[in-house]
Amino acid sequence: MLNEAQIIARLEKFFPKYIGDDAAVIKVSAKKSYLVTKDLLVEDIHFRKKYFDPLSLAHKALHVNLSDLAAMGAKPEFILCGISIPISYQKYSTDFLYHFARLCEKEKVILIGGDTTRSPDKLFISITAIGTALTKNIKYRSTAEINDLICVAGNLGVAHLGLSFFEKSLFGGKKFKKIFLRPDAKVKEGQWLANQSCVTSMMDLSDGLYIDLKRLCQQSKVSGNLELERFVPTADFISSCNLVGFDPIETMLTGGEDYSLLFTVKKAKYQKLFSKFKKKFGYEVKHIGHISAGSGIRFTRNGKHEALQLKPFSHFGEL
Amino acid sequence: MLNEAQIIARLEKFFPKYIGDDAAVIKVSAKKSYLVTKDLLVEDIHFRKKYFDPLSLAHKALHVNLSDLAAMGAKPEFILCGISIPISYQKYSTDFLYHFARLCEKEKVILIGGDTTRSPDKLFISITAIGTALTKNIKYRSTAEINDLICVAGNLGVAHLGLSFFEKSLFGGKKFKKIFLRPDAKVKEGQWLANQSCVTSMMDLSDGLYIDLKRLCQQSKVSGNLELERFVPTADFISSCNLVGFDPIETMLTGGEDYSLLFTVKKAKYQKLFSKFKKKFGYEVKHIGHISAGSGIRFTRNGKHEALQLKPFSHFGEL
Repeated sequence: MLNEAQIIARLEKFFPKYIGDDAAVIKVSAKKSYLVTKDLLVEDIHFRKKYFDPLSLAHKALHVNLSDLAAMGAKPEFILCGISIPISYQKYSTDFLYHFARLCEKEKVILIGGDTTRSPDKLFISITAIGTALTKNIKYRSTAEINDLICVAGNLGVAHLGLSFFEKSLFGGKKFKKIFLRPDAKVKEGQWLANQSCVTSMMDLSDGLYIDLKRLCQQSKVSGNLELERFVPTADFISSCNLVGFDPIETMLTGGEDYSLLFTVKKAKYQKLFSKFKKKFGYEVKHIGHISAGSGIRFTRNGKHEALQLKPFSHFGEL
Repeated sequence: MLNEAQIIARLEKFFPKYIGDDAAVIKVSAKKSYLVTKDLLVEDIHFRKKYFDPLSLAHKALHVNLSDLAAMGAKPEFILCGISIPISYQKYSTDFLYHFARLCEKEKVILIGGDTTRSPDKLFISITAIGTALTKNIKYRSTAEINDLICVAGNLGVAHLGLSFFEKSLFGGKKFKKIFLRPDAKVKEGQWLANQSCVTSMMDLSDGLYIDLKRLCQQSKVSGNLELERFVPTADFISSCNLVGFDPIETMLTGGEDYSLLFTVKKAKYQKLFSKFKKKFGYEVKHIGHISAGSGIRFTRNGKHEALQLKPFSHFGEL
């Protein structure tokens, strides 16, 4: 079966200019642009009703879309919500819509429309988010440069660990489960990073660091070097990985749905950026590697090449 | 179960200003607005794969969204396509995407993004369409006035008749089936009508004249009077209705999915408008009734009240 990347590659033949980033850019004027993104959430592919209460699903549906806007540095403004509802899901879906509307208010985005229909058996949610940005500040995937540092703002592998606690019906992992259920889009961080000229490229981490960095490098026509000694899992993360049967470093590299921000920064400027970021947001940016010439992703540990066979993250049944 | 109208009514409590028309209006400047709409197409609710070839489905998915923009007088500009694909539908869905991209080219709209995911069992399509309009020209549902004439540009009941030929596995009805499979959004007509100041309100006919006019009247706080002697089905339509077991007038009143334009026009100006329309588009606008004070829909035949019990159109399983 064609996967999403192959389908996008086909579509790019028709519309080469517009597809490939987290959100599409519509230039309104020389200064201002609208950014538009659309993400689907499908029952038993992206979520299971048995562990997603309506509030968590509403939170996730909204934030995965806000995250796409954050990834390009946009300010979220408007939301459209499409939902297809199985006949037996009345209470669940009206609760979902109630919470979704409240969360839009909380995030100061305006719910401007949508569509509700019946569904034969599964719940389908389709959100469109529209944001604004100064055209000159928008960050893309295609602009990473050789010698830039590769950085992440946010978690790595944590949401996937949470998902695994649910899927394996294990006790514990409460902290990780919550991050999986209700990821917070890094909207403020995205806008702030977009405003820094030393940040050369950006995207959000929805499918896992390994596969998403590969995409960024492909679009930028460079290669990514991940320095494994920089991946330092917490004791809590390690013990929970052990419980689930995961390798902690591999989980950090491939686990999806963290909705952290992956970005590259000019080497000469990173120290100043990191300290300003920490002061502003209260947590540290992770520096995890650097950009080189070539293509693909390489791994090193203390300067020595290391071969890793990684199985990219997929949702239960994502393409 | 709550229907779409009830869900929208709930959402309107939170966001009263933005929901209720065919598309949402985002004012970019005093002059220009963006209009955004989103329509879902769900397998076995809105279409069945057995009689929707991929080209027809692509056509319909695009045009039902373009129709929402047409209904407010907007020029379609951008499209996002979300699709959830069951694992066994690879050829069907890549054919769909191929045709969808080609049709976007044909309609001169730019496919700027989307999302593809797997689906557990049914094909699910979510399109977002974005158009532009001069803010002052945009037509709404809420602005019909007493004594305006009620008019329709396009078919009434024809698509539903086509659907019934499919659903009842009857031979014939080719012309009607085609209109059901591949409705053409009245994009040019919508823009032209929006430019006429004598047109006081407008919407598209997706759920059938009776229910859609009721919505328009509700939003405009007026009542609609349908003059049944003005509904003149063709011989072909009558004989096909007989074959399917439908009453022709009732089918014209309740059949959905024609994607015609329903609009109201100032009485003093309608003759000039009608002749200009005919000259420009080569077919006649139907004048089918008038607006009065009050609420709801009334039926008359040659001036005499007539009681009709209508069962509103629904898709196979629309809310």
